[in-house]
Order: sequence, then structure tokens, then C-alpha cells
Amino acid sequence: MNASPKTVAVVGSGALGSYYGAKLARQGADVRFLMRADLEAVRRDGLTVREKGAEWKVPAQAFGSTGEIGPVDLVVIGLKTTANADLERLIPPLLHEKTLLLTLQNGLGNEELLAQQWGAERVLGGLCFVCLNRVAPGVIEYYGHGTLSLGEFGRAPMERTQAIGAMFSESGVETHVVEDLITERWRKLVWNIPFNGLSIATGGRTCDLLLADDGLRAQVRGLMAETIAAAGALGHAIPESFIDYQIERTYSMGPYKPSSMIDWQLGRAVEVESIWGEPWRQGNAAGVGLPRLELLYQMLRQVTSR
Amino acid sequence: MNASPKTVAVVGSGALGSYYGAKLARQGADVRFLMRADLEAVRRDGLTVREKGAEWKVPAQAFGSTGEIGPVDLVVIGLKTTANADLERLIPPLLHEKTLLLTLQNGLGNEELLAQQWGAERVLGGLCFVCLNRVAPGVIEYYGHGTLSLGEFGRAPMERTQAIGAMFSESGVETHVVEDLITERWRKLVWNIPFNGLSIATGGRTCDLLLADDGLRAQVRGLMAETIAAAGALGHAIPESFIDYQIERTYSMGPYKPSSMIDWQLGRAVEVESIWGEPWRQGNAAGVGLPRLELLYQMLRQVTSR
Repeated sequence: MNASPKTVAVVGSGALGSYYGAKLARQGADVRFLMRADLEAVRRDGLTVREKGAEWKVPAQAFGSTGEIGPVDLVVIGLKTTANADLERLIPPLLHEKTLLLTLQNGLGNEELLAQQWGAERVLGGLCFVCLNRVAPGVIEYYGHGTLSLGEFGRAPMERTQAIGAMFSESGVETHVVEDLITERWRKLVWNIPFNGLSIATGGRTCDLLLADDGLRAQVRGLMAETIAAAGALGHAIPESFIDYQIERTYSMGPYKPSSMIDWQLGRAVEVESIWGEPWRQGNAAGVGLPRLELLYQMLRQVTSR
Repeated sequence: MNASPKTVAVVGSGALGSYYGAKLARQGADVRFLMRADLEAVRRDGLTVREKGAEWKVPAQAFGSTGEIGPVDLVVIGLKTTANADLERLIPPLLHEKTLLLTLQNGLGNEELLAQQWGAERVLGGLCFVCLNRVAPGVIEYYGHGTLSLGEFGRAPMERTQAIGAMFSESGVETHVVEDLITERWRKLVWNIPFNGLSIATGGRTCDLLLADDGLRAQVRGLMAETIAAAGALGHAIPESFIDYQIERTYSMGPYKPSSMIDWQLGRAVEVESIWGEPWRQGNAAGVGLPRLELLYQMLRQVTSR
């Protein structure tokens, strides 16, 4: 498949999947949404997106199972990683010989899971930098950002990568095709591991409070240094200066609540394995000492299992 | 002063101070208790101790200020370490030229504080292994154990140490005079740092649960190893085999709640600085890398400051 995908399935139609899927559908793509709680509302009313003070709607093909959707050219996966075990059941009905699998999920290990089960040659990944919330059945509110970093799993970008990137770009999503997807994931983890983790581990401190306290800021930096060391040992070089850059950038964010802290406060599942567990396991297997990350991971496993 | 102290003041008459003070008073010592909330009840009814299925009472000299108590031969300090700032005001009225100060408080740094303010030559310390609870004003319930390890601060035991030890022994408290008090404190911290800390950091896991989970048990061992490394660098050698011994011993304790976890669950102050902060500061100043302890300490500072 070298041209744009003709048919797209969105698996995991939470805020993220619904938003990107709605953008593609509005641009004319044949997008089929797997829905659970919102199925009836979306069949009746389509999807509604509120952004930049305006609101737009798009009719949406909503299905209750991937068997009803059938084989497509591209599967966009927006599932919470805590539900990854469901993929084994959800994906097979969507596959034809050349179906591509694009995971927009958080953290590490998602591309590997797809590759193991359905072949590495199908797998792409994307990092989403976007603030969204599902405010009612089928209604997504957009608060800002929205860029997508898109790449191949374990390969440089190909013609098909550019085609998918163009499809997203044309739908109004600022999309960058990246040379090394997994390095990008590690760069994102350099921020997510300390801030998402310590915000929960401290009982709900926002980013400004984590930085205002000397002792906590030292833990942020220590966790960033461990993450960079793990990435480096795995062949994903990130310079030490990235720490200062991320700290400075975060000062400007003020009393920001990391997404995992919001999940935790609302009693939703927290993506502990993909954000802390898998980076620790991979770094540990590469022989890197990661005592802070290990302790944080083990505590988060416990405090988020309610 | 080479003979037993003639007059004793108990500062911090919670469960611990009240229990040991009541034992001494029952044996005939002149013990004067500084009381706050329980002052009227104890003046009226004395102290009541329930132990081993029986109950005994002893009249108690209770005072509302150390000024009313006046100079004594021995001050027994049972204050929570979180109230250590009060000592500057409480101690001076109790001092004559040879008054001894015996801290029965938890963790590190308490002897140092007394020594700095009132002279190292006055200072002794004790480690209490006892399960107590104040169940009503002036009423202490004893659940078990009760040994006291008594030592000089920065010196080998002296004649006076033996005299004070004998006084406690004769009152029915199993007392051991120890050669190196601070090494004993570090040995106790090898248990308290991981179990008291992780029980809070995991949102309330009892000791059996901390050991049942492979990932958490690895953190227990990691924190024990860091504590032993810090102690060793500070001249308090503890063999690595102490880790296995403590782990095995703790399995036999079942679903035990560490004291700091109980404090935390009841909304009481947690002794973060003496159990985690001071060991980290001392080990860090000695050049030992203590990443797990540092992260745990910084998180506990936050989650216990409610």
C-alpha cells in the first residue's frame, strides 16, 4: 500500500481516538469507529468537536465490534494501554494482508506488542501532544496543542509513512514524520516519568509545586538522568542538556496537572506499565542502574491499584 | 552522679513516656510527668497500665510545665521527634549542673540535638522495642515486647549508664546496656526505613504485603542495602547478612502495621526527619549514593504534610 489508506478503523474511541478520527472523517476519509458506551449517541448524532471557541459535527460510522467493521487499510489505536490485553481479540477482524497498525498510545512497549502478534512490518507509532477531554457522549473538547509525531517501528520513514502523515496534515493535524520513533518516545518519557510519577507519589502535587521544592526538584532531575541513561544504553542518545531544557519549559507551564495525575484523581486506570514499568524493564535488561525509577514504579503499581 | 538518679522528669508523656515513667514510679522512684491533655485526669487518678491481662495503677506527680517540675537528676524524653523544636523551651528549667538527658525517641539526630544545646556529656539514648497505645487519658495499654537498649552518646557505657540501666531493670523493663548506641540506631533504621516508609508510600500496605510482592520486596532490600552503606560510611559497620535476617524475621510478623503507618492513617504527625531525613542527610554528607532513600524521603515529606 503506497497510496493513502482508503479505509480507517479507530480502536479505542476515547477523546484521543475520537478527535483524530473525527478530523480524518471531516476531511472525507472512510473512518469506522469502534465504540462502547457512546455507540448509540454517536450513531444518532455523530461526533462533535469543540475547539477554539467553535463547534463542529461530523457524521460517524460507529460499530459495537471490530467484526462488524471488518478489514481496513489502517487501524488507529487510541486505547488506554491498561486495556492492551483486549487487542488480541479486537485486532484480527480488522486485518487484511496489508493492514497497517498505528498506535497513538502512551509510553513504551505498544509497538512491540503489535509487532509480536501481527508482524513488525505493519507497525507504526505516533506521539500525540494534545489536550483533550470527552465532555459528553460523542462530544470532545479540545484545549490546545495537537501535533502528531509519526514514525515507523524500527525503520526509517517510508513512502507509506509520508502518505499517512499527509492524510493527517490535510485533516488539520500538524504532523511531523520522525526518523526514529522510539527515541522520540524516550524523549517524551524524560518528562512523563518524573512529572506524571511524582505528581501521584506526592499525593497530587502539580508541576509548579514539584519544581518549587528543592528536594523534589532534585528527584525530578534524578529521574530524568536515569531515563536518559536507560535510553542511551538502548541506542537512543539524548543529551544531558535536555534536562535543563525540560525543567525550564515546565516552569512556564505553571500549576499543570500531568495526565496520569488526572486519571488517578478521577479513579481511572493509570498507565503504569507503559510509562514506568516497561522503561524500567528495558533499561534494567540493558544493565543500567535505575534505583529511583524502580522504586517509583513499584510504588505507583500499588497506589494506583484500587 | 554515679548512683541512680534520685529525681526523674518525663517530658513527652505519651504512651511511651507514661509507660516507662509509670514503671519507674511503681518501683518507688520520684518521677515527675510533664502532661498536657491528660494533666487533670492523671492528677486525679494517677496512671493506669494494662498489661498481660491485668491492670495496675500508680499515683503520678503530673505538672503542666517544666518550670513547675524544676531541676531533676534525669530527664527521660519521649516526645515525638516532630515536636523537637519545643525542647529548647522545655529542657532548661529541668537542668542542674549534672542533669542527664535520656532520649527514647525514634531515629537519628535526637542525641545530636540535645548535645548541641546542653552538652554532649549529659546525653544518653535508648531504643525502645515495645508495643503500646494510650487508650484513654492516663491509661496505657501494653501489647508486648518492652526491651530497652540503653547507651551513651559517642562514648562507651560508664558507671552511670549501668546505674540507669539497673533502675529500669529493677522496675521490670528488660534493659540492655549497649556499647555503641548509634550503631544500634542504624540497625533499627535498617528495618524502619523500608517498612515504615513503603507502608505509607504504597498507600497503606502491611509488612506481609510488602514482602509478598517481588517488586516491592526488591525495594525493601534495596533500601536496607542503602541504609547499611550509609551506616558503614559513618563508622557503624552492619554486615550485609543482616538484610536476610531482617527479611526472615519480618515474614513471621504477618500483617504488621509499622508505627509510622498507624500515625499516618490516624492523621498524626509522622517522624519523617528523624527516620528518613537525617539518615539521608548524614549518609549523603559522607558521600554515599542513596537514591532510593532520597526519593522515598522526599515523597514522604509531601504525603505526610497534610
